[in-house]
Amino acid sequence: MIYKIAILGASGYTGAELVRLISGHPSIEITALSGNSKAGQSMAQVFPHLRHLDLPILTTIEDVNFNDVDLVFCALPHKTSQEVISKLPKNLKIVDLSADFRLRDPAVYKKWYGINHTSLEIQKEAVYGLTEFYRDEIAAARVVAGTGCNAATAQFALRPLIAAGVIDLDEIIVDLACGASGAGRSLKENLLHAELSEGAHAYAVGGNHRHLGELDQEFSLVAGRTVTVQFTPHLIPANRGILATVYVKGDAQTLYKIIEKKYKDEPFIKVLPFGEHPSIRHIRGSNFCHVGVVADRRQGRAIIIAALDNLTKGSSGQALQNANLMLNLPETMGLMMAPLFP
Amino acid sequence: MIYKIAILGASGYTGAELVRLISGHPSIEITALSGNSKAGQSMAQVFPHLRHLDLPILTTIEDVNFNDVDLVFCALPHKTSQEVISKLPKNLKIVDLSADFRLRDPAVYKKWYGINHTSLEIQKEAVYGLTEFYRDEIAAARVVAGTGCNAATAQFALRPLIAAGVIDLDEIIVDLACGASGAGRSLKENLLHAELSEGAHAYAVGGNHRHLGELDQEFSLVAGRTVTVQFTPHLIPANRGILATVYVKGDAQTLYKIIEKKYKDEPFIKVLPFGEHPSIRHIRGSNFCHVGVVADRRQGRAIIIAALDNLTKGSSGQALQNANLMLNLPETMGLMMAPLFP
Amino acid sequence: MIYKIAILGASGYTGAELVRLISGHPSIEITALSGNSKAGQSMAQVFPHLRHLDLPILTTIEDVNFNDVDLVFCALPHKTSQEVISKLPKNLKIVDLSADFRLRDPAVYKKWYGINHTSLEIQKEAVYGLTEFYRDEIAAARVVAGTGCNAATAQFALRPLIAAGVIDLDEIIVDLACGASGAGRSLKENLLHAELSEGAHAYAVGGNHRHLGELDQEFSLVAGRTVTVQFTPHLIPANRGILATVYVKGDAQTLYKIIEKKYKDEPFIKVLPFGEHPSIRHIRGSNFCHVGVVADRRQGRAIIIAALDNLTKGSSGQALQNANLMLNLPETMGLMMAPLFP
Amino acid sequence: MIYKIAILGASGYTGAELVRLISGHPSIEITALSGNSKAGQSMAQVFPHLRHLDLPILTTIEDVNFNDVDLVFCALPHKTSQEVISKLPKNLKIVDLSADFRLRDPAVYKKWYGINHTSLEIQKEAVYGLTEFYRDEIAAARVVAGTGCNAATAQFALRPLIAAGVIDLDEIIVDLACGASGAGRSLKENLLHAELSEGAHAYAVGGNHRHLGELDQEFSLVAGRTVTVQFTPHLIPANRGILATVYVKGDAQTLYKIIEKKYKDEPFIKVLPFGEHPSIRHIRGSNFCHVGVVADRRQGRAIIIAALDNLTKGSSGQALQNANLMLNLPETMGLMMAPLFP
Repeated sequence: MIYKIAILGASGYTGAELVRLISGHPSIEITALSGNSKAGQSMAQVFPHLRHLDLPILTTIEDVNFNDVDLVFCALPHKTSQEVISKLPKNLKIVDLSADFRLRDPAVYKKWYGINHTSLEIQKEAVYGLTEFYRDEIAAARVVAGTGCNAATAQFALRPLIAAGVIDLDEIIVDLACGASGAGRSLKENLLHAELSEGAHAYAVGGNHRHLGELDQEFSLVAGRTVTVQFTPHLIPANRGILATVYVKGDAQTLYKIIEKKYKDEPFIKVLPFGEHPSIRHIRGSNFCHVGVVADRRQGRAIIIAALDNLTKGSSGQALQNANLMLNLPETMGLMMAPLFP
Repeated sequence: MIYKIAILGASGYTGAELVRLISGHPSIEITALSGNSKAGQSMAQVFPHLRHLDLPILTTIEDVNFNDVDLVFCALPHKTSQEVISKLPKNLKIVDLSADFRLRDPAVYKKWYGINHTSLEIQKEAVYGLTEFYRDEIAAARVVAGTGCNAATAQFALRPLIAAGVIDLDEIIVDLACGASGAGRSLKENLLHAELSEGAHAYAVGGNHRHLGELDQEFSLVAGRTVTVQFTPHLIPANRGILATVYVKGDAQTLYKIIEKKYKDEPFIKVLPFGEHPSIRHIRGSNFCHVGVVADRRQGRAIIIAALDNLTKGSSGQALQNANLMLNLPETMGLMMAPLFP
Repeated sequence: MIYKIAILGASGYTGAELVRLISGHPSIEITALSGNSKAGQSMAQVFPHLRHLDLPILTTIEDVNFNDVDLVFCALPHKTSQEVISKLPKNLKIVDLSADFRLRDPAVYKKWYGINHTSLEIQKEAVYGLTEFYRDEIAAARVVAGTGCNAATAQFALRPLIAAGVIDLDEIIVDLACGASGAGRSLKENLLHAELSEGAHAYAVGGNHRHLGELDQEFSLVAGRTVTVQFTPHLIPANRGILATVYVKGDAQTLYKIIEKKYKDEPFIKVLPFGEHPSIRHIRGSNFCHVGVVADRRQGRAIIIAALDNLTKGSSGQALQNANLMLNLPETMGLMMAPLFP
Repeated sequence: MIYKIAILGASGYTGAELVRLISGHPSIEITALSGNSKAGQSMAQVFPHLRHLDLPILTTIEDVNFNDVDLVFCALPHKTSQEVISKLPKNLKIVDLSADFRLRDPAVYKKWYGINHTSLEIQKEAVYGLTEFYRDEIAAARVVAGTGCNAATAQFALRPLIAAGVIDLDEIIVDLACGASGAGRSLKENLLHAELSEGAHAYAVGGNHRHLGELDQEFSLVAGRTVTVQFTPHLIPANRGILATVYVKGDAQTLYKIIEKKYKDEPFIKVLPFGEHPSIRHIRGSNFCHVGVVADRRQGRAIIIAALDNLTKGSSGQALQNANLMLNLPETMGLMMAPLFP
């Protein structure tokens, strides 16, 4: 059986990445692509790298015929996303890539995103889309909320350790480097090649990054108490990839064993030998996350380093992995391509 | 049926690219990987981006058991390649990625590579591996010689035009930009990130690039007379990709029609609408070649621009495409992945 | 004596580059900086790399007091530039970096820029600012029109050869690669780091680039007949630098001698030994232009390669060089800094 | 008066950077350049960006005539450096850029560099070259030991705070990103453009980086007790620049005031407004260090971010600043050039 899907917001990077991935998927077919600002154009015009594919023309959301559709990927900005999703037919399966349904508490949503949530019923229903930790709920869900790409990376490094109670919950620092595509296709001076190339800067310093809403929620849930990490993201002159360097207090060997055991059978999370650590150059374009654990010279301290591709495992690859589960397809279907190196 | 292959020289970029491509191929399986300088190591050590794959350990060539093997990819340097291939069992199918069997005339080989050819029998037998122009010969061949990546790009732009007799054969200029991986994994100062990044330089200026041996041979063959193009390659601060800007004298519309017709049914050569032209960012990591034709403001002159990924369509993707033909598999099998953008 | 200057349009790249250069100039002082869209901000806010300097606040043009000013650098877009300059006090010396006063013939201006020129008196008065070829006129001028950065590079390679009558004037091809800053600080998708990095594309293919207006004008003037070159610029993933690869018909040794002789005493034009050719990595951030001449394998053909920094020698460095002449200062003052490498 | 200097090890990046800086220095002249592996070559051959300069030919160290020389910059690898320096005339002033004289305790030197120190007399005499903190000692010194570039960056962020006793000395984490030139001109696979570009990886994770020897020594000295920081350097795909993100426990406003006061009159250390933080793109090619202080959302925690150019302020610029002091020249002479942006 071939499932039919629509992608809303196909003119952004995550939308294009979904098309790239699905073009190699044997059981999913794209029947509609929306992109309001580019409606009427072909994907080849908007994304010439997809010109070899036979794809529907971009339309407005209003012009999508949802009768045909088994599942919708919603790659719209937050706020727009909840407005659109609340009007979709209630039987449709939905994978949302925005921030709108990641946070369980409307007050927390308002705190981080500055607006009231207006689709509370769907928010309640939505399952947090970190596949490796919500697999069963996702398989049974109608609406899945994709995670933040930074939030996913930090959770792959930390969730098993927080769950196991083996690190000091008050002393977690997540220092992270993210490639330029993480900022989307937005036209800002500091995303210009001439400025970012040979650049590197921190942003949202001091605990202002919105993905902290997710980390606070999930880590506190896992720990059974409030967990408030420190988090500094940096933008670096690479296109894709997130490298999270995580500082914790705990015994490195113990930590390694827990991480190793947790991910042993995971198809996409690859734990490196103890003492080794990953690079974003080795996961580019793939759905893999590489994780390493290193002991610090100071007794009782360790560094966990996790690397994934923000557009794939951090976003559209995760979305497809979740869609596979929701459609009762093998979880890894269409997602096992090797990273592109060099 | 699953065919078994070996890759000799798997510790270089083209070897690793073959592994990447074959890891997604449904009918080919890797049974041996050689890499003399890294024998005994796992591919995960040499190329961590392949760590999710279950691959044979790197061995010396001597330790490869060829009994098991249906086809060998030989990704060794020229000179080494002919020495190794001449000792392989004579029933083995071979796709060679080096320059050793590209040139038909041993004197021409000596001129460009400075050494005597020592495997003349196999040289005679070998078929030049530009799939779109030697498809039938390749399907019937035992030994196929992969083309130079620059030579392939220039030929995709020019062969149909030379064959059709619609351009001035004495006035062809190929100006070309190539990404850093085109130089291989060789340790040279001007390939260091600190030097090439923010760089850009021509090399082998004035007609010294070895791929000219192939261009002279093939273009003269097609034209039925000697054709001697001008050719200037540049190294630019990108990893993958070749962009050839080709200057010819001829009527642009006529040229376009010939190119359009020639490639209409080719799965991997995509001709852009008249007047448009491609970028390497839109073919990265794929087996596609994008070709555009633009009229110059000077009557009777045109610019052909062709873009492909030097490691994929220019090398390992071409090799796999040829292997598919030689193994009687569908030519596009395992090769239809979309480019990676951004 | 310290001369006082104003920079109009200081919030763009060429404006900032002027500030950088002048900050090290012993006889020029900045008294006013305008930037209409950023009026009221400090340069440290707009360009944090200048935060160590004690600079005037950005104002609107209207708020600049020109009484104090000896010379104005006008780094505004074309069209705006002529409107602003036509209203400036008539005694002010002006170095314009826009395209507005480069073309002598208003009809040619209209052809390339699509608008009527409205400041014809000043246009007549303006001297074309290619210092090495208009030195005396510039020293005596009130208004100097800075050249296009691509046009400057091509002229450094070709003017002496056209003047000497040693190349075929109907067979000149200029193939050129330019870094991202050449496109200015404009917010366009294909200038985003995520798109340009790992990209490379031609633009204005077929003779559509506006700098051709200058090349046609200047080359025809030098030759005493119409000269119409072919010209293909490419954008490459570097920040600064133009590398022009120029194909001509003529005797390479003869060409070399002419170029060598012409530039022998030029402080900023450095001719490499015969057969060598330059890279943009070796002129970055400097006012130098490196030129090389190589013979092609085809008798009677040669390749000239010229490299300069589009923001320095191609724009703001040239402007300062011209200002030095206009102010009767040593031409090289403040401009001898070595390139930044790596 | 013009002082005469020699540069030993002029064929590496720090040597070339010294030449670049000194070429604009009004009171220092280069009389000798050594580079054993490239002896007999001109600097234009080894570093074409310096081709406009009239420089001595590279010689072996043995061929340098030290009679002429007032001061020697020694840009050799550690171990070689102490061997060479121990044989130099004892009256020569020396600025060493290697690690050989940074550590006061020979046992500590052996621990980090794995070899016995063989020049203990000079080691005792040498002054640690962090100008802003050892100004008077440097002015009086015969031998100054340049600091590690990472070590300098971390100290600019932390020394005033440790001295003031306002942060928890047991809870300091230095997370740092460094550009490729920080690794020198060494030929390693992971420094190739094709590998580092689009890469980013940590190295020496867990407290293994040799610059920790300096940090331990200096921080403990300042604190009057043992201070052992955590330190993770990362290599990012930029050429120049170090961005240190430092996590401390202390009151952000208090910290800011101390830093602001300490650096108020420093010509090269620029403290940003409270809450702002720097980027390496804004200090490239200059001798400036930008420092920012941000409060974390967790009470009592702060982030200090410092940015400098590893080759300039982190190495050769610092060396020249120290040489100015040793020669009784104005400290900033030849060093006030603005950063290169974009």
